[in-house]
Amino acid sequence: MSAKKTSLKDIAQKAGVSTALVSYVLNGKEKESRVGQEIAAKIKEIAKELHYQPNHLAKSLRSGKTHTIGLIIADISNPFFANIARVVEDEAKKNGYTVIIGSSDENPDKSRDLLNVLINRQVDGFIIVSSEDSAEQVQDLKAKGIPFVLLDRYFPDIQTDFVSTDHYQAAYDAGNHLVSSGYKRIGMIAYKSQLFHMQERIRGYQDALKDNKIPFQKAWLKKVRFSYIESEVRATIDELMAMKPPIDALIFATYGLAINGLKYFNELRLRVPDDLAIVSFGQAEVFDLYYCPITYLKQPIGLLGQTAVGLLVNKIKDHQKGPAQILMKAELIVRASSKTKFPE
Amino acid sequence: MSAKKTSLKDIAQKAGVSTALVSYVLNGKEKESRVGQEIAAKIKEIAKELHYQPNHLAKSLRSGKTHTIGLIIADISNPFFANIARVVEDEAKKNGYTVIIGSSDENPDKSRDLLNVLINRQVDGFIIVSSEDSAEQVQDLKAKGIPFVLLDRYFPDIQTDFVSTDHYQAAYDAGNHLVSSGYKRIGMIAYKSQLFHMQERIRGYQDALKDNKIPFQKAWLKKVRFSYIESEVRATIDELMAMKPPIDALIFATYGLAINGLKYFNELRLRVPDDLAIVSFGQAEVFDLYYCPITYLKQPIGLLGQTAVGLLVNKIKDHQKGPAQILMKAELIVRASSKTKFPE
Repeated sequence: MSAKKTSLKDIAQKAGVSTALVSYVLNGKEKESRVGQEIAAKIKEIAKELHYQPNHLAKSLRSGKTHTIGLIIADISNPFFANIARVVEDEAKKNGYTVIIGSSDENPDKSRDLLNVLINRQVDGFIIVSSEDSAEQVQDLKAKGIPFVLLDRYFPDIQTDFVSTDHYQAAYDAGNHLVSSGYKRIGMIAYKSQLFHMQERIRGYQDALKDNKIPFQKAWLKKVRFSYIESEVRATIDELMAMKPPIDALIFATYGLAINGLKYFNELRLRVPDDLAIVSFGQAEVFDLYYCPITYLKQPIGLLGQTAVGLLVNKIKDHQKGPAQILMKAELIVRASSKTKFPE
Repeated sequence: MSAKKTSLKDIAQKAGVSTALVSYVLNGKEKESRVGQEIAAKIKEIAKELHYQPNHLAKSLRSGKTHTIGLIIADISNPFFANIARVVEDEAKKNGYTVIIGSSDENPDKSRDLLNVLINRQVDGFIIVSSEDSAEQVQDLKAKGIPFVLLDRYFPDIQTDFVSTDHYQAAYDAGNHLVSSGYKRIGMIAYKSQLFHMQERIRGYQDALKDNKIPFQKAWLKKVRFSYIESEVRATIDELMAMKPPIDALIFATYGLAINGLKYFNELRLRVPDDLAIVSFGQAEVFDLYYCPITYLKQPIGLLGQTAVGLLVNKIKDHQKGPAQILMKAELIVRASSKTKFPE
């Protein structure tokens, strides 16, 4: 099924001219070399007939630029990343770049594989939502001098360009909001992860309790594994609700955790917010449609994506001097799921 | 910021040996050419130090295979396609292929651009969820002899491999189910589109009414434009509910239409299914979490993706003879949103 590629030679033979002449014509240099219009038209006609595909890659290798950006996201089935990808594409297009996407599914081997595939495909640079255990890959890109910008997740110990939500402040705002709404036993379900953004979300939640003089209880913080999300979210909710007294509010550290948790609440016939107040990270249509609209931390997806593309394009064009490290604020969208417990 | 690539010559100069020798060593041929172990180790050390990146592309060009698949999806922000992408990646990985994704955002220019970019990046073949007005691109791929499989959407007038849901049967099942649940004035909101799968969904809905001796009313079928989905879904729901009498059931022809519609129902304080029964295409967590679980057509995402990868890999390996055209059945998942109107 795979076809033999038409070469300049094939066209030259069929047209009865030299390969050099075909090359001149197909590279738009017929005027310089004073080729007759008739023969130029004939060559173009034959090229079309034989489905000749010019080798843009060879051209790109000469110019050194392909106007292509590689976007590595951590999980394509997470709407947050899918929406980020949409924004990155739109913004890249405005700048004359095409985006090629790879999803690492939170797997460092897959992430490394994708980086290599795309480096070999000569992308001009990368925008990366890093997966677990991928710090070494980032170091490697740096060492190779390949332009890249980290998006949403970054490594505090590696000096890189990044654009990210301020995850600490967002979680702090969530905890603080629940306390001031009258909740006193506030839990969090997060991922078991070494990634900095997850650590920051946990730290923000804990500091919010501390600053409000609520002693943090270890049993309130649950960490589940990404690969076992469904069963472990259920198990941890069982634990949190079996405590005496149970928690009265819960922060989901990601959208995926929230979806699994809310589904399980329905099964348990737990009512939000009467049985349990909720605040979640992530943003998705589902939070609008739940019977009780969910209070959530709205990350500035549009601005995150646009800024990342802008930084990367500047790096590719060699315009940027020092590293740019940008933290953006998430907006707490307060809705019924965290309404004030004791009306004032 | 962009780095000068390390060449074999750079390494040769630093090691004080010939470029040919460096090439032998880095291509693992040191044994054939009887290079001393010490000098081979030195060359490898210098290559590492200078961050030498072997040109896999050149290698791939020699073998003619890159073990890379291009996946073009119609809209990355639609969870249906994002989930399909996840399945395709998993299955491709099992077969030793890496997937590079592009999203056309239902735009034929973007789709053409992505195809060209990926053809130039030497993918071995494509899996494509076609966008509007892209029939010519499919013809073009055929003419060029590039292996590809169409996924979910296909063109009845073009002989190609495809794997798709039976969209006609799915819509027919939806209409039939609503009639047998006691609903008599059944509307549909679909996209204004020339794409065959959308035509088939509309035809299935109409035939279900006809076969149940319910005269179809033109005003029950609304077609909205993809780019104006939010405002047009609202306007058409206003029209459908202003009819005297209004419709008593509604089929959403896609997930995106359903999300927008259900959100508007909440604003209007319309109750599902008492004011309006609902069946929707697409599958997403949101249908589980709505206060009234939504009856939907579950497309066999896993099987669709796996089969598409299997067919494409066979085509790439030249194992497949004739075209394979596979239609799969969607499963109607009946839930509270379409419960029987008049208990028997």
